[in-house]
Amino acid sequence: MNSNLSADRPTFVTHLECSLTGQRYEADQLHNLSAAGKPLLVRYDLGAVRGFLPRAMVEARATDLWRWRELLPVRRTENVVSLGEIETPLVPIPKSSGSPNVLVKDEGRLPTGSFKARGLVMAVAMAKELGVTRIAMPTNGNAGAALAAYASRAGIETIVLCPDDTPEINVREIALQGGRVYRVNGLIDECGAIVAKGAAEGRWFDFSTLKEPYRIEGKKTMGLELAAQFGWRLPKAIFYPTGGGTGLIGMWKAFAEMEALGWIGPERPKMFAVQASGCAPIVRAFEAGEEHAERWEDAHTVAAGIRVPKAIGDFLILRAVRESGGRALAIGDPAIVKAAEDCVKKDGLLLCPEGGATLAAYRQALIDGLIDEDDEVVLFNCATGLKYPMPKATKKLDKTKPGDLSKL
Amino acid sequence: MNSNLSADRPTFVTHLECSLTGQRYEADQLHNLSAAGKPLLVRYDLGAVRGFLPRAMVEARATDLWRWRELLPVRRTENVVSLGEIETPLVPIPKSSGSPNVLVKDEGRLPTGSFKARGLVMAVAMAKELGVTRIAMPTNGNAGAALAAYASRAGIETIVLCPDDTPEINVREIALQGGRVYRVNGLIDECGAIVAKGAAEGRWFDFSTLKEPYRIEGKKTMGLELAAQFGWRLPKAIFYPTGGGTGLIGMWKAFAEMEALGWIGPERPKMFAVQASGCAPIVRAFEAGEEHAERWEDAHTVAAGIRVPKAIGDFLILRAVRESGGRALAIGDPAIVKAAEDCVKKDGLLLCPEGGATLAAYRQALIDGLIDEDDEVVLFNCATGLKYPMPKATKKLDKTKPGDLSKL
Ligand SMILES: Cc1ncc(COP(=O)(O)O)c(C=O)c1O
Ligand SMILES: Cc1ncc(COP(=O)(O)O)c(C=O)c1O
Repeated sequence: MNSNLSADRPTFVTHLECSLTGQRYEADQLHNLSAAGKPLLVRYDLGAVRGFLPRAMVEARATDLWRWRELLPVRRTENVVSLGEIETPLVPIPKSSGSPNVLVKDEGRLPTGSFKARGLVMAVAMAKELGVTRIAMPTNGNAGAALAAYASRAGIETIVLCPDDTPEINVREIALQGGRVYRVNGLIDECGAIVAKGAAEGRWFDFSTLKEPYRIEGKKTMGLELAAQFGWRLPKAIFYPTGGGTGLIGMWKAFAEMEALGWIGPERPKMFAVQASGCAPIVRAFEAGEEHAERWEDAHTVAAGIRVPKAIGDFLILRAVRESGGRALAIGDPAIVKAAEDCVKKDGLLLCPEGGATLAAYRQALIDGLIDEDDEVVLFNCATGLKYPMPKATKKLDKTKPGDLSKL
Repeated sequence: MNSNLSADRPTFVTHLECSLTGQRYEADQLHNLSAAGKPLLVRYDLGAVRGFLPRAMVEARATDLWRWRELLPVRRTENVVSLGEIETPLVPIPKSSGSPNVLVKDEGRLPTGSFKARGLVMAVAMAKELGVTRIAMPTNGNAGAALAAYASRAGIETIVLCPDDTPEINVREIALQGGRVYRVNGLIDECGAIVAKGAAEGRWFDFSTLKEPYRIEGKKTMGLELAAQFGWRLPKAIFYPTGGGTGLIGMWKAFAEMEALGWIGPERPKMFAVQASGCAPIVRAFEAGEEHAERWEDAHTVAAGIRVPKAIGDFLILRAVRESGGRALAIGDPAIVKAAEDCVKKDGLLLCPEGGATLAAYRQALIDGLIDEDDEVVLFNCATGLKYPMPKATKKLDKTKPGDLSKL
């Protein structure tokens, strides 16, 4: 069967490092933020990985997330927790994008229906490895669902706080999967403040985005996977719906690691950080040339996953976008909704609103001349569209008198 | 990228055959049922496939459904319609099953969230190949969703009829994906009667389960995939939630074809056809030793996908189950719900009710001594649990006075 899950593999983590100051932290210990209050990044002995793991060896393995074990932090195979983290497909949407070269990476196929599974499967495995028994997290919905599922599987308790308008399905899913979930009358950072308070009181381990070092390693696999899927090249541009930005930061890290391994060259995709006009702190900072982003007040958008007023990894997102020659783009809700509608009607692919935002941003970037029509482009659809409210459909038919069938 | 979707491949279909009488029908023409009113089966020149396609050649391809092109009916690559039909993962559920050898094949990862994608991607591609422009179908929800998505993508019009208590998400999903969907005050076979009437009037092509020959070819890939995933062996038993039975019939056909190709030996899994106590026509026929199954009156169960009072492929299901040494098992709704609850709480895997039924049936089969605890077993979870109503979760927390966090 799938040996990525059962075979012992050497591990190459050397230490952790503050993403701002470079200060060194020990691996194999519990950490949240660095002393500077910034995210920690996991470092590997990439020279040793390079000697041990030729690209062809990875290619020969089953294509799931655990294929990348030597570039992941989990030390012991027994701590690998899995619900089937498959490689997600690239789906062309020629009609709604107008180009055969626009591919949607459909992350809704992952366990619990979103790309949050990538980060949380890793963070939960590490929590298990490091002896954590109780975890709390603020979430816009998808991250909490992934946390609850993996933690229940690993026998770890979870407390999950969501903004009170989180889609009903998410909240119910978290509860069903064994999470203790609360709706809070505030946004995600306000939920985060309560989580931080409880963590300070020693009640649980804080699993907020980027406040523990391993989610980013899981999200990194999006970048690794793309390279493998493109035959060790990368697309010309990546459109990523950006809330906390873990995925964007993770992919950027993956590209650097793969270059160090000799798996890819120095070329990089233009990274487009896509936000909603009603919550665009990264876009504002990008345009102002700032290194950090201020909190966005009165945040609102249909795309709840990117309604993140303040991202702790702001400077990492901004750096990656700038280095790549990409842009941060803000999209209005009507354009988001319209793009998602076009895609499902014409190409049969039901996107989440955040996915719709990437298609709308692609259209914007075309108009603005930031990319070309024949550029190979990847849009991230980070969750299954089935988790979001859909318009009512109410046509009825009577079986005893169906009437004139030409009217159907 | 994925060459299964773009490379031309030789095709090996020779003809179609009545599943009851063996009467021969031409390939490359539109067909519904045979003259005997029974499903048609697609036949291939397996000798030629054997010469052309060694097992190792299939193994070297990307693992999606189109990897099996030479055993599928689509002739021209341009008619391949795809939304990313990945190989679905096998997820162990050690805690709720009590055994490390029980694997859930998680079909909810397919496009539109169910295994119906396998059948419909094939049937729609063939409809495109044969020039169909308008399709109608009765559905308990999932099949209609898959039809609408693929047909919209292929530019084919669809009319979809569902029983009026079909889960809301399904109906909305169908509409969003461009299907014209109606709720009908009747069960699936009563919706089917209206579809048949319209087809007789020449208004559309009838896509009811097994009334066109190609869905079964798509569903067959479940059997092909299992063999590849198990290293060209097969599990000891398969539990399949049985409505129309396409998947069970399809897998059985796949096993025979693979044996003819020399890919597997003569061993077969015990096939367990799982039905709900409130709608168990196959179980009743199985126990009575009948070759066909009477319509089940007053059908009711929480597992809407297997609420099929009358299956046109009844004799094919019954034959496969009997030849395999398996059984048809009826499970009460409480056991279905309990099994699904155990699985999500303990193993973090959210099953659909039909998937819950297979876990409950596994438990029953263990108790009845039909299988052993250490038998390798596959349970089919045919759709994502996210499509089904979930219990409310209503705990609230005030951000301004979260209170004693030890109470959370
Ligand atoms: C569907 C969806 N898209 C995008 C995001 C944003 O992801 P990130 O925090 O990595 O920027 C989220 C986060 O909740 C999400 O759920
Ligand atoms: C979730 C689910 N399980 C099982 C079935 C039954 O499938 P089949 O018609 O192949 O027996 C269906 C069909 O609607 C379904 O939607």
